[in-house]
Amino acid sequence: MKLATYTANGQTRTGIVVGDSIIDTGLNGTMIDLIANWEAVKDDLAAKAATDSGVPLASVKLEAPVPRPGKIWAIGLNYADHIAESKMGTPERQVWFTKAQTSVNGPYDPILIARGTATPDYEVELVAIVGKGGKHIAAADAPAAIFGYCVGNDVTERMWQHAGPQWSLGKSFDTHAPMGPWIVTADEVGDPHALGIRCFVNGEKRQESNTAHLVFNIWQQVEHLSTGMTLEPGDVLFTGTPGGVGAAMDPRQFLQPGDVVRCEIDGLGHIEGVMAAEA
Amino acid sequence: MKLATYTANGQTRTGIVVGDSIIDTGLNGTMIDLIANWEAVKDDLAAKAATDSGVPLASVKLEAPVPRPGKIWAIGLNYADHIAESKMGTPERQVWFTKAQTSVNGPYDPILIARGTATPDYEVELVAIVGKGGKHIAAADAPAAIFGYCVGNDVTERMWQHAGPQWSLGKSFDTHAPMGPWIVTADEVGDPHALGIRCFVNGEKRQESNTAHLVFNIWQQVEHLSTGMTLEPGDVLFTGTPGGVGAAMDPRQFLQPGDVVRCEIDGLGHIEGVMAAEA
Repeated sequence: MKLATYTANGQTRTGIVVGDSIIDTGLNGTMIDLIANWEAVKDDLAAKAATDSGVPLASVKLEAPVPRPGKIWAIGLNYADHIAESKMGTPERQVWFTKAQTSVNGPYDPILIARGTATPDYEVELVAIVGKGGKHIAAADAPAAIFGYCVGNDVTERMWQHAGPQWSLGKSFDTHAPMGPWIVTADEVGDPHALGIRCFVNGEKRQESNTAHLVFNIWQQVEHLSTGMTLEPGDVLFTGTPGGVGAAMDPRQFLQPGDVVRCEIDGLGHIEGVMAAEA
Repeated sequence: MKLATYTANGQTRTGIVVGDSIIDTGLNGTMIDLIANWEAVKDDLAAKAATDSGVPLASVKLEAPVPRPGKIWAIGLNYADHIAESKMGTPERQVWFTKAQTSVNGPYDPILIARGTATPDYEVELVAIVGKGGKHIAAADAPAAIFGYCVGNDVTERMWQHAGPQWSLGKSFDTHAPMGPWIVTADEVGDPHALGIRCFVNGEKRQESNTAHLVFNIWQQVEHLSTGMTLEPGDVLFTGTPGGVGAAMDPRQFLQPGDVVRCEIDGLGHIEGVMAAEA
């Protein structure tokens, strides 16, 4: 099933995407509520998807599938080619930072270049959305803890990321976590470690890889994160970016106002945002 | 005014603390809602505080004043004596990491030592609670963006903090952000940069300083954080810890099950938690 958060007629709702249509779930509450109640609602939603006609997808505005996640964790240095271009060693242990919940952005919304900053960069990533979550989740049990997947762009203010030792603030600027266009549930994705992943800037391919190349796979990620911290429904995991970021190009290329950044993953669709100078 | 979140008769509510009593605010919603609506409700709450009698504080359970903040940011290396004991240089630029919203803990609740971990440590800190917040807040305007203050313990799993380059996960274990016992509003605190701050383990004084010694003061912190990221009502800022943490003792001392950690700040009260091995 494909599940979206969308706005129509001034109301933000959850919906089921079927082809070029979106069907209101009929549920009040947010995507987090839907995920938390999934076992109770999934049969009804499947029935709606099979019988209702909905409205054209093009007639609504898609929001980030989880507009206000409780937490967003992102793993660094998790594709060999990105580690090489970052001139770092392969970490023996997973390296995690965070993105603020206020950094979430709709899949097709403009991405802001904050006043006084000039080094925004893209990072296409497979995003895992936590389902029932939990704590002390063994890697073998992790698939049952994940609700589904979407496309993400771990937009990064590079100067702010690297001006000091901690990355999270440079990863947390407003609009710097575009996600979407919708969640594809885990059963429909199948193996999340076999998906082609690409990023284009103004149509030029900048990143291309496959999630088969993750250094630490998603199950290992869930095990590591949940050792001391409870994962909750709707929490968001950015699972790493492949090589090809602008900061590693020669010469370095940062995003400019008007640049169009498109991120796509096989089976999950694409997101696309235009860079805009903050007013 | 002193504002608390508390549980009584199975309901979690907001209240006004007056002496040894707590008076229900009469407001539905969370502390974040109260803070967001402060201008509309403050006169009514002041009137309640002056006339209502409430119930004994000892008859209720105090929760963290903001049980689910949107974000928690914490600054590292922000007292000279803590920088020295950490064997780091004084940063030219503020160093920020995060604590997960799931790490919040009540002021007198047990603090868990997660299964498989053995290096929990204390860090007493002055905590600032964001009021109206905003973006691009100049230091000169920052006082108007802060709602109030409370005591915090930036509990840290040291091995997890330092096993890799990024600190946030080792700072985000469940129960590792005790806060409270209540928010003292900014008008009642006066100058937040003139407060004695202390931490005791089993009655032994381990940390003692004054917020006058912050390297980057709270107004500079607000300016820095809000450059690219919107601060929102109820967001939480841990403003740094003074010297004296267990990891810097000779020999190193980590917290053990049964240890009692008390953190106190002049004018704000104290929080106190017992260390407990996770079941």
